[in-house]
Amino acid sequence: MALNLNDAIQACWKRIDEGQVATYIPALAKVDPYQLGVCLYDVDSGKKNCAGAANVRFAIESVSKVITLLYAIERLGLAKVEEQVGTRQTGFAFDTILNMEITKETKPLNPFVNSGAILVSSLIEEEDHRSPFDQILDFTREICHDPQVTLNEEIYQSELRTGDMNRSLAYYLKAKETLANDVTTSLETYFKQCSMMVTCESLANLGAVLANDGIAPWSGERLISSDAATYAKSVMMTTGLYNESGTYSVKIGIPTKSGVGGGLVASAPKYGIGIFSPALDPAGNSVAGLALLEMISRELKLDIFNY
Amino acid sequence: MALNLNDAIQACWKRIDEGQVATYIPALAKVDPYQLGVCLYDVDSGKKNCAGAANVRFAIESVSKVITLLYAIERLGLAKVEEQVGTRQTGFAFDTILNMEITKETKPLNPFVNSGAILVSSLIEEEDHRSPFDQILDFTREICHDPQVTLNEEIYQSELRTGDMNRSLAYYLKAKETLANDVTTSLETYFKQCSMMVTCESLANLGAVLANDGIAPWSGERLISSDAATYAKSVMMTTGLYNESGTYSVKIGIPTKSGVGGGLVASAPKYGIGIFSPALDPAGNSVAGLALLEMISRELKLDIFNY
Amino acid sequence: MALNLNDAIQACWKRIDEGQVATYIPALAKVDPYQLGVCLYDVDSGKKNCAGAANVRFAIESVSKVITLLYAIERLGLAKVEEQVGTRQTGFAFDTILNMEITKETKPLNPFVNSGAILVSSLIEEEDHRSPFDQILDFTREICHDPQVTLNEEIYQSELRTGDMNRSLAYYLKAKETLANDVTTSLETYFKQCSMMVTCESLANLGAVLANDGIAPWSGERLISSDAATYAKSVMMTTGLYNESGTYSVKIGIPTKSGVGGGLVASAPKYGIGIFSPALDPAGNSVAGLALLEMISRELKLDIFNY
Amino acid sequence: MALNLNDAIQACWKRIDEGQVATYIPALAKVDPYQLGVCLYDVDSGKKNCAGAANVRFAIESVSKVITLLYAIERLGLAKVEEQVGTRQTGFAFDTILNMEITKETKPLNPFVNSGAILVSSLIEEEDHRSPFDQILDFTREICHDPQVTLNEEIYQSELRTGDMNRSLAYYLKAKETLANDVTTSLETYFKQCSMMVTCESLANLGAVLANDGIAPWSGERLISSDAATYAKSVMMTTGLYNESGTYSVKIGIPTKSGVGGGLVASAPKYGIGIFSPALDPAGNSVAGLALLEMISRELKLDIFNY
Repeated sequence: MALNLNDAIQACWKRIDEGQVATYIPALAKVDPYQLGVCLYDVDSGKKNCAGAANVRFAIESVSKVITLLYAIERLGLAKVEEQVGTRQTGFAFDTILNMEITKETKPLNPFVNSGAILVSSLIEEEDHRSPFDQILDFTREICHDPQVTLNEEIYQSELRTGDMNRSLAYYLKAKETLANDVTTSLETYFKQCSMMVTCESLANLGAVLANDGIAPWSGERLISSDAATYAKSVMMTTGLYNESGTYSVKIGIPTKSGVGGGLVASAPKYGIGIFSPALDPAGNSVAGLALLEMISRELKLDIFNY
Repeated sequence: MALNLNDAIQACWKRIDEGQVATYIPALAKVDPYQLGVCLYDVDSGKKNCAGAANVRFAIESVSKVITLLYAIERLGLAKVEEQVGTRQTGFAFDTILNMEITKETKPLNPFVNSGAILVSSLIEEEDHRSPFDQILDFTREICHDPQVTLNEEIYQSELRTGDMNRSLAYYLKAKETLANDVTTSLETYFKQCSMMVTCESLANLGAVLANDGIAPWSGERLISSDAATYAKSVMMTTGLYNESGTYSVKIGIPTKSGVGGGLVASAPKYGIGIFSPALDPAGNSVAGLALLEMISRELKLDIFNY
Repeated sequence: MALNLNDAIQACWKRIDEGQVATYIPALAKVDPYQLGVCLYDVDSGKKNCAGAANVRFAIESVSKVITLLYAIERLGLAKVEEQVGTRQTGFAFDTILNMEITKETKPLNPFVNSGAILVSSLIEEEDHRSPFDQILDFTREICHDPQVTLNEEIYQSELRTGDMNRSLAYYLKAKETLANDVTTSLETYFKQCSMMVTCESLANLGAVLANDGIAPWSGERLISSDAATYAKSVMMTTGLYNESGTYSVKIGIPTKSGVGGGLVASAPKYGIGIFSPALDPAGNSVAGLALLEMISRELKLDIFNY
Repeated sequence: MALNLNDAIQACWKRIDEGQVATYIPALAKVDPYQLGVCLYDVDSGKKNCAGAANVRFAIESVSKVITLLYAIERLGLAKVEEQVGTRQTGFAFDTILNMEITKETKPLNPFVNSGAILVSSLIEEEDHRSPFDQILDFTREICHDPQVTLNEEIYQSELRTGDMNRSLAYYLKAKETLANDVTTSLETYFKQCSMMVTCESLANLGAVLANDGIAPWSGERLISSDAATYAKSVMMTTGLYNESGTYSVKIGIPTKSGVGGGLVASAPKYGIGIFSPALDPAGNSVAGLALLEMISRELKLDIFNY
């Protein structure tokens, strides 16, 4: 591979200054912005190439929306999930219900805006006395190939305390009769899934499963259906980077999902990529992380529209 | 190829009943809805496989937005075009300025909503006494490999007569100081480019150039830069089917642009596809055409997210 | 007085057919639509003139927003209330937060949309172990000169059960840090105030206090300040009939507030008016009630713009 | 009268610093902001009391919307005008079509936003070879009792040159098939009516006609119907000060219309008021002018909601 990841990190480092760590909860506000890590999983060779803060644990936040979506599809089937949530772009910020209001839609426009993600979380039912979150946590450990994924109780408590806009969204969905579970349980699941701690390597593994048509490259075992993997990558491309998804589909051209913890998961053909850098742009995406992903895409020719 | 296009047409034929031909101008309103044609250009073999109404001429309408975009990039460079128009989804109908108003944007959100397309048309300057449209027409004949492409004067006159919403959009852009030319010239160019008559085969050729990284497969000549081709395919994926782009990125997964004349151009790896069927869904996309494209995508495994 | 109220009721009776009773809670859905009552309080003569279903008790619903607003002004002062809530029209339905979202406002646009009314309810603090609602109830009995006003427990329980959109609004305000109390208490107060049972006569008394510069005409006692009365009448004129306030300021020209229980309170110079007819127009206003008010305004020349 | 107008002007003078003159056309941008004039017409006594820059001529701008509305009602009848334009508040800025778009309305929400005013201007037809504007000019001279009102050609030419947003609105109305005349004529009328030069005294006269039920107090002649006067005052109260109408209905309580030339016309019972001060607040209303009007309302007890 022509690309030296350490050099790439160095080249993107100064972009950190352009962003700011998330400040809506203390646990995120105190994170050191000057971190940049990457892990690149080459599915063909089975080799992982990591650099920088690749093994630092950070809050998964909205990257978890991909995992819960995949789990919901596994449990309920793709058709049922598609009945409940659209795959259209909103044109607005991730935590607004503006577009549902204006367009008189009753189902969330896509699973990656908060309203859609809360709805997807509400679809997971308790099973064998295992709460929705316990199931999601187990599935996360499996698809991220990382048994160390745990709930960060401090972050979860912070999310609970500051989650009033998400409560507003959840009650809106309840009022529209689209939320599948009660508000408290749905939000407990949602806040907890956002509070899981992962590393670049965990996300590279997740990306690699998606890059390998749903099969774990480390074991050869199918973890999700081919349809689920295809669906997730498509929705990541069109709505994964919030309101700037179209901007980066042009610049980078790789299905990607970001979180306000600074994480990015990307899934190119034959490559799973996990990136972490906590300083965010105004849309909530990691600045240096996206710069690094753009460089990787260009150097390794991973833009899926480049054919 | 396992797929028999005649069988596919037959299978999708009944979907025509679900749509309606565009009625905003008489020349489109009188088109027979019961038409469905397709042309599939296999770039590797160089073979074209056509069926149904593949050689019927129809109004290109919004499919021309792809061509003018490519021509503007060739003339001005990609950077200059990206300065003038975004690549974000709007969340609204193609002829509204709602989103620009709400988000206080002064540049159109993408080149495929009407405001963005009018802006792109305004970027083309007169050159050597050749009007912007004359240049676009020549470029269309070249990239569609179809010297028969001509302006349909009846449709153009109709567009002129009924084009008040587009005039409203153009003056809005003028007021925001983003339109690059005067309103009359910009709209003349825009209305004329929409009034060109093409066939499924012309659009398959256009799709094949995009599918072949910008090189005409029939001659080996590069017609547009690789970057322009990649850019166009990305924007077609995220915004090419109006407000339903995200819906079809999941269902079909091929960069596609539709027009209210019933045309579709699609560009999958190694395949250029042109389709025509004039009965439209409420979003303005060909109903049977998209059904046929979905079938082709599934049978030939062309979904670019399926990796 | 030239106007015979029984004749007026008869003339407006057939308008009932144009409306529908509120159906969002069973207790309102089962109300007989064929009711129309009015009570007209002539402040100068001290005479009350009632007709039709003038003594039927019905749910006060949004008419209570006037009372709680007046009470909040009495407790906190007008300046403090004006700091917390605007007096601008929204251009949208009463239960939407669309306009706050679009305009990036953090304070509700006026006290008569639900978000504004919930905010005003949140301003009332517990005092001497009397809950906000207990204080509002006592104040309602006083200003409506009606000790029979009580909480309808069935309606209150229904409001609680179906109140998810109001919960969404309350959490939205909480997230914007504008709600003055916790969500549960604020909504308990709000839902209870909406569930008080009043008559046309109670509302005519309320209207008469406003028509008499804040002084109860039955006792000569000042119940609210002149400023509070003036403020309330102004806001009733510009926003009292929801999104149709401007329509009726032209047709009727009397400060009026409606409720989905079918009640109307109006306050013209020298006249307090209470009306009840439960069949509503799509905006949530009593159809026959407004027809009757329009007739009264015309016959008694009460339009305050007619000078 | 207890109020000394010179003292009042002095008291409000410093408020001028809070505003800025309109800058969208050079002819307005060069106006000296440090001007404040007032003329108060006492209908009962027939006396006019003027102070400050009461006889300075300034561009009438949006105050002309009242005059054209009254003239349209005189020519077509109130019912016909009400068919074409609503009386609802928009919740948005005066030059936006946002609310029509969101609410899917085809008729402008009220006659004082630009779209509504352009529509009203389009209703005036050529008559006896007199253009719509010539008729409006004559009517203005009559209702303002000011034969010196003339068209300021420099301002008109500037409006023409910078009027693209109004062109956008006009074509929007044309596309919705609500504009009654062609775009060019409608806008010529509109731009010309905005370019008439008036004084505080002219506007006080206009306000006095409205304050006197449509009868010119200087001659006893009825100039407009009582219904037209009542209608205009109601719409001025609910929408006359743009998006801040509700704010000032509470603060001032007098039907008022502002223009970006710095003019205000107000019509209280028995008083017509004209004010001029060109420094504007962000909503487009004269800052010192409204401060002065608020002082006049308070001192003379003119708030119509204060009963």
